[in-house]
Amino acid sequence: MSKPCIICVAITGSVATKENNPAVPITVAEQLESIHESFEAGAAIAHCHVRNDDGTPSSDPEKFARLGEGIRKHCPGMIVQFSTGGRSGAGAARGGMLPLSPDMASLSVGSNNFPTRVYENPPDLVDWLAGEMRTYHVKPEIEAFDLSHIHQAVAMNRDGRIPGRLYVQFVMGVKNAMPVDRDVFDYYRKTIARLAPEADWCAAGIGRHQLTVNEWCIAEGGHTRT
Amino acid sequence: MSKPCIICVAITGSVATKENNPAVPITVAEQLESIHESFEAGAAIAHCHVRNDDGTPSSDPEKFARLGEGIRKHCPGMIVQFSTGGRSGAGAARGGMLPLSPDMASLSVGSNNFPTRVYENPPDLVDWLAGEMRTYHVKPEIEAFDLSHIHQAVAMNRDGRIPGRLYVQFVMGVKNAMPVDRDVFDYYRKTIARLAPEADWCAAGIGRHQLTVNEWCIAEGGHTRT
Ligand SMILES: [Zn+2]
Ligand SMILES: [Zn+2]
Ligand SMILES: [Zn+2]
Ligand SMILES: [Zn+2]
Repeated sequence: MSKPCIICVAITGSVATKENNPAVPITVAEQLESIHESFEAGAAIAHCHVRNDDGTPSSDPEKFARLGEGIRKHCPGMIVQFSTGGRSGAGAARGGMLPLSPDMASLSVGSNNFPTRVYENPPDLVDWLAGEMRTYHVKPEIEAFDLSHIHQAVAMNRDGRIPGRLYVQFVMGVKNAMPVDRDVFDYYRKTIARLAPEADWCAAGIGRHQLTVNEWCIAEGGHTRT
Repeated sequence: MSKPCIICVAITGSVATKENNPAVPITVAEQLESIHESFEAGAAIAHCHVRNDDGTPSSDPEKFARLGEGIRKHCPGMIVQFSTGGRSGAGAARGGMLPLSPDMASLSVGSNNFPTRVYENPPDLVDWLAGEMRTYHVKPEIEAFDLSHIHQAVAMNRDGRIPGRLYVQFVMGVKNAMPVDRDVFDYYRKTIARLAPEADWCAAGIGRHQLTVNEWCIAEGGHTRT
């Protein structure tokens, strides 16, 4: 029996700006319009970052609140996922929107390199974010930038820090982190099947690799991120 | 045809102190005595950290110089490997002993979590350390705390940042990094065989896992760290 394929749409991310692509939605109104189009095209999850008016990354809970309300109103049934990623703020500011109780939020459980810096997710911050997610009934999407992050998510699932069924996203193609590599993709799937067979998984290929990774996901029964 | 198994001895590390184990060698004289015993028992590589007199980690080039000279004198032919690990200093201080031209030095090419903090190896520091190793003809031992670190080492080998034959050490069993896991150990080996078949590899299991990982290495034709 095949599971439905969940399409997760990340309309904005935290890096691209209007200078890279004038179509990048920046204001909450632009983001809502874009999410609504994706919803009508079949996307089930809206992965949300917010931006300051000048396009720089923000983690302002008030902006997240307006975006979440807009999605609930215009895209009924769509799953709202807020990013707690480190490009939008530092330390506890990254979880300042969790009391809004979005359906889901991204959660990194380990650290790794990014193109020009360390993506820092120290153990105490990871535990605090996971605790906030339990408090506000937010389901984490684990962002696995490397293999040990899957092992760490499984350990946190087993000891109760991440309750319920794991939802893991493999992130590939970020410079200085894990490249897009079919053998690694297959080993990630095998690791999930071995350690957490109930878990859902999806994968994201960054930039020009996006469609390749989408195809792998759909062919192998995973969910997918656009 | 079987390759000789290289035994690498890490007599001190950077964490254990006299309070944990009165036998931990701290002064350069104590370290030399311990390395000499290992040398007579068959160890080929001395993996060296240095300590301050109070036992805390140091990266003092003068201490490294005395240790290196002592090894050359008392253990002729033994390979001297200095640690550039992040417990002993921050930023460029981690490479301050490389102008001494030890035979080898450890090199981390990615970041990951440690028990209570982020092990930070930002891309520009990694490139600087690799450059110093090229300048002073120091062969790096890549410390792979996660799978992407192997991919990164291969990429740096291909583009010339790490010249020659790769020497990779898999590090397993550090809390919040990669656990000791036989399936991962085998996948690490397969990844080396696929991407850098000429490379040498060894593995280190931390603390109580040390002997398990030593046995895996010896059985599978890798080098080993004690
Ligand atoms: Zn997703
Ligand atoms: Zn995101
Ligand atoms: Zn070694
Ligand atoms: Zn060491």
